[in-house]
Amino acid sequence: MPVSETVPVSVPAPSAVHSGQVAITGVTITPVAFADPPLLNAVGVHEPFALRAIVQVHTDAGVTGLGETYGDEGHLARLRLAAQALAGADPFSTNELRSRVARALVADTTLGGHGMSGMVTGSSTADRVLSPFEVAALDIQGRLLGVPVSTLLGGAVREAVPFSGYLFYKWAGHPGHAEDSWGEALDPAGIVAQARTMVDGYGFTALKLKAGVFDPDAEAEAIEALRAEFPGLPLRIDPNAAWGVETSVRIGKRLEGVLEYLEDPTPGIAGMAEVRRRVEMPLATNMCVVSFNDLPPAIAAGAVDVVLSDHHFWGGLRRSQTLGGIAETFGLGLSMHSNSHLGISLAAMVHLAAATPNLDYACDTHWPWKNADEDIVVPGVLGFRDGAVAVPTGPGLGIELDQDGLEKLHRQYLDCGLRSRDDTGYMQRIHPGYELRSPRW
Amino acid sequence: MPVSETVPVSVPAPSAVHSGQVAITGVTITPVAFADPPLLNAVGVHEPFALRAIVQVHTDAGVTGLGETYGDEGHLARLRLAAQALAGADPFSTNELRSRVARALVADTTLGGHGMSGMVTGSSTADRVLSPFEVAALDIQGRLLGVPVSTLLGGAVREAVPFSGYLFYKWAGHPGHAEDSWGEALDPAGIVAQARTMVDGYGFTALKLKAGVFDPDAEAEAIEALRAEFPGLPLRIDPNAAWGVETSVRIGKRLEGVLEYLEDPTPGIAGMAEVRRRVEMPLATNMCVVSFNDLPPAIAAGAVDVVLSDHHFWGGLRRSQTLGGIAETFGLGLSMHSNSHLGISLAAMVHLAAATPNLDYACDTHWPWKNADEDIVVPGVLGFRDGAVAVPTGPGLGIELDQDGLEKLHRQYLDCGLRSRDDTGYMQRIHPGYELRSPRW
Repeated sequence: MPVSETVPVSVPAPSAVHSGQVAITGVTITPVAFADPPLLNAVGVHEPFALRAIVQVHTDAGVTGLGETYGDEGHLARLRLAAQALAGADPFSTNELRSRVARALVADTTLGGHGMSGMVTGSSTADRVLSPFEVAALDIQGRLLGVPVSTLLGGAVREAVPFSGYLFYKWAGHPGHAEDSWGEALDPAGIVAQARTMVDGYGFTALKLKAGVFDPDAEAEAIEALRAEFPGLPLRIDPNAAWGVETSVRIGKRLEGVLEYLEDPTPGIAGMAEVRRRVEMPLATNMCVVSFNDLPPAIAAGAVDVVLSDHHFWGGLRRSQTLGGIAETFGLGLSMHSNSHLGISLAAMVHLAAATPNLDYACDTHWPWKNADEDIVVPGVLGFRDGAVAVPTGPGLGIELDQDGLEKLHRQYLDCGLRSRDDTGYMQRIHPGYELRSPRW
Repeated sequence: MPVSETVPVSVPAPSAVHSGQVAITGVTITPVAFADPPLLNAVGVHEPFALRAIVQVHTDAGVTGLGETYGDEGHLARLRLAAQALAGADPFSTNELRSRVARALVADTTLGGHGMSGMVTGSSTADRVLSPFEVAALDIQGRLLGVPVSTLLGGAVREAVPFSGYLFYKWAGHPGHAEDSWGEALDPAGIVAQARTMVDGYGFTALKLKAGVFDPDAEAEAIEALRAEFPGLPLRIDPNAAWGVETSVRIGKRLEGVLEYLEDPTPGIAGMAEVRRRVEMPLATNMCVVSFNDLPPAIAAGAVDVVLSDHHFWGGLRRSQTLGGIAETFGLGLSMHSNSHLGISLAAMVHLAAATPNLDYACDTHWPWKNADEDIVVPGVLGFRDGAVAVPTGPGLGIELDQDGLEKLHRQYLDCGLRSRDDTGYMQRIHPGYELRSPRW
């Protein structure tokens, strides 16, 4: 298998209506793997490598656009299906890309393999597959027109986008391997030490604890320890629906006045709505509202106060802005979700967040957990200062593909043997008695 | 008063974040008037002239963008207030334009004068004032980037946008003046003859009757006469909330299977919801849902099936697309409303409709009621064929300002003496006993 595979393109069929000037001539989809620490969550533990797919969309204008998405095998198969349907399409018509991707996936009846390991379910397949192509199309548009993607999205309203420090319980290192530089974090003291490293290193002005791992009271204790150590920082906890309604209410009441918001304490819209009625703090979600179809029932039930957008499963940057408009219209707050990701996704997240005025909260990112020398973009543009990333000002996404980095991470993908994310299976190989349960407490 | 007034611009204050290349240097707002026939509606009759404001936004890049909006005096005052706040702003940042306009209007506590004569109430003032500037900004962007506005909106999904033939009861001519070329239409036969002229002249493939003028059964009879004469054409009736709930239900049942949709039979969300529960056909509105604030209660009440967008009061083209996304998300149909308008508005409507995939219905337009020799755009680009207008393919809106036409219609504005639309007052000057009532039947 070559470093990148070019999807064969048949004779370009011009789209019905387009700018008449640019056509997609090919797509390169490259699966990559990068080292990931043993981060614990409600469904298991991160494997030694995180998988992503790097998408390059080539045009007859000599310009190539970049996208990044999940790297699971099933998702890769759907990306290839969609890529073939984009031959000849106009990258200036994201409407056309959306309808072509939707049509291409009609034949696809496979299930699962969404690359999010059970923690995000039910999101629209078509939107998930469309996303990297839409981002690449906007990158192409921006490069050809000489404007940043944030400008194509209505203009940046902030020069830098704040992110939250994303804290995880973790083992000292992957079993059988040396301790990693972060070391162990299995109790409040470990979490506070991890937060101190993150805040000192990146300047984060908000903190989020991935929970659902230990007894809920122990995790509440970690939040209280963070509050004592960082009196001024907004704090969030996300047990990924590991708690039942009663546990959610009990821990929620314990942390009233301490949390900025409580994220996905319990599964489902009905459960979230009940917790929301009984707890005095905003409830956030990226689990019970993960596609446009989830919005009407969640709004009708009054299930949540804050929706975490994520352009990877909301159909790209423009559709994520539609989500922003819906949030504004219905009085919902807007934050941003993250999976393990590389530089193309970070750039896209920053452009989107910069051009979305009602993005009220610091965004999530797994960025600090990635080795600094592992990426697929040329260094120098993306960086954290005071917990925020400056919006790239170059044309398109404002970043360039690092071919050496891409080759290195693709070889790592080929060598690592992982083909789908499986936090639960990895945990069970280490602790055979481990069972997946939601809610667990 | 000169033909156009240039709002003085102070030293340009660069917006916080922008493309760094283009700034607004001045705005010209020109009120115009064009001849309008005596079209009858639920609140009176159209006066001899319709008023509009033509907005030119000038930039330091030597490019000027065009917008068109209502011409009422109160609205003009607010446009001037907003224009002054736009000095130095980046036309590439529609986000920035929106926040500047909103801030500029905080000081404005005037009410009324929205230019829609009581038939559209409660729409957001800020969105109404923003609209022509946002359209002009997109026109500037397209001109500078060399792409049509439809491309900036995600790409045209149709080459031409279908419109409905907009039928009105009308007098033969304005009192004291000669009969106009359309002649009288005060009964089913007159409406059918008018429809025949419109269909033969423009090729319309859908028809809408503005009702709320005569006894509801007489208006239903006109619809039935249209059905007999045009068996294949979708038909709509719009009494502008002139009917009570019981009348709406009775006429609605009479026209079940005949109408494509029933538009605003009765006032208010609660009334519409009750009619909707009792009548077997889609209910449409541009009266009880006229701003983003109206959407949550209307959706919760299940009040309507179809929302008529209108970029003039939904805050421009991008925010109208957000409305489109909300309609798609909540399973609402999307159509388009029209007031009396000129060529800039027609071009903007066509670009928006072309780039909005879920615009399910033929759009409304008053275009045929305008004299062919009265406009402010250079002829040749906009025209009807088979009831549809081809999407302009030139940069920006794809149209050019006709300076002579602008001067002629501005002189007409100065000479005609009208400063606000007042269908009711005009009717009362002719028929002193006329009273405004909603519902009337």
